Amino acid sequence: MPSDLTALRAAVLARTDRRRRLHVLGVAQEIDTLALRWGADRGQAARAALLHDVTKGLAPAEQLKLCAKYDIVTQSWERGEHKLMHAVTGAAVARFEFGMEEAVCDAVRWHTTGRAGMTLLEKILYLADYVDATRAFPEVRALRDLCYEDLNAALLRGLDLTIRLLLAERRTIHPDTLSARNALL
Amino acid sequence: MPSDLTALRAAVLARTDRRRRLHVLGVAQEIDTLALRWGADRGQAARAALLHDVTKGLAPAEQLKLCAKYDIVTQSWERGEHKLMHAVTGAAVARFEFGMEEAVCDAVRWHTTGRAGMTLLEKILYLADYVDATRAFPEVRALRDLCYEDLNAALLRGLDLTIRLLLAERRTIHPDTLSARNALL
Repeated sequence: MPSDLTALRAAVLARTDRRRRLHVLGVAQEIDTLALRWGADRGQAARAALLHDVTKGLAPAEQLKLCAKYDIVTQSWERGEHKLMHAVTGAAVARFEFGMEEAVCDAVRWHTTGRAGMTLLEKILYLADYVDATRAFPEVRALRDLCYEDLNAALLRGLDLTIRLLLAERRTIHPDTLSARNALL
Repeated sequence: MPSDLTALRAAVLARTDRRRRLHVLGVAQEIDTLALRWGADRGQAARAALLHDVTKGLAPAEQLKLCAKYDIVTQSWERGEHKLMHAVTGAAVARFEFGMEEAVCDAVRWHTTGRAGMTLLEKILYLADYVDATRAFPEVRALRDLCYEDLNAALLRGLDLTIRLLLAERRTIHPDTLSARNALL
């Protein structure tokens, strides 16, 4: 278990492929500014950002091994969805391998789908991940600006964008994403 | 309890305001063609169509009275949504006031939100209600055609249209609508 942020950063980056490192550091940068703006704990925010994709480079079989190892229960359809699995296994790794506190693990757990009643830390990780400097989708600048003006409005817009994307791609929309959105209305 | 379809039609139309009568008859017409196309029970289809909006003309307070009378449990946010309430109370009225069989009541119950694992009767009522001759939204003709080519594809398109509309209007998307869609993928 790394004793400070520098050690944690080094430990996480050592197990992250090069392409993803830039995104992880981008999220850490963005969440720090968001934490300052909205008064969140900057240490927790930094740890959550560094760990949020810690298992994203793992193959499906390795994700499933982590599920077995850490007694993670998922629905069968979720097991085929890499984006959902890495959030769940990442939270377990943050907890059991990096000894993170619950608030940080929860932020990692919900950074992909969101959920009803998100904490401030969960919201800023979800949004930092959405708008960090490596993102380039058409609406990203407007969404980034909104993150600093109205956090809940930005979260709602991010969730709506995700739902629209999944509709267009004919992919499953996670019930937690719907709950997150409905709870904000 | 009406003993045949003519009596049921008269009984329902007598408690339906003039504007809505045309829609109810339009749905009855559409569902009959759909029942023939997909091999559903035409009698059940006709009864479901006639009864699907039987409580839609009632004011919110009357909807709530029916909920109390028939021990209907709803979530608090659903009580403010007229479109959701009339499906629930309509099913109860179909059952307790018109003595309808479960298959017909279920079709009425789920005609607004849909649900995962819909029966053939539930699907054709959902779609007949979506595309009957009184409907005039831009995609209606294409959707009506699709109803006769691929019922599940039409259902998916209808559910997606509803989700997109609710996103655009910043209204709550019912979890049952999401489940109905996800189950079809």
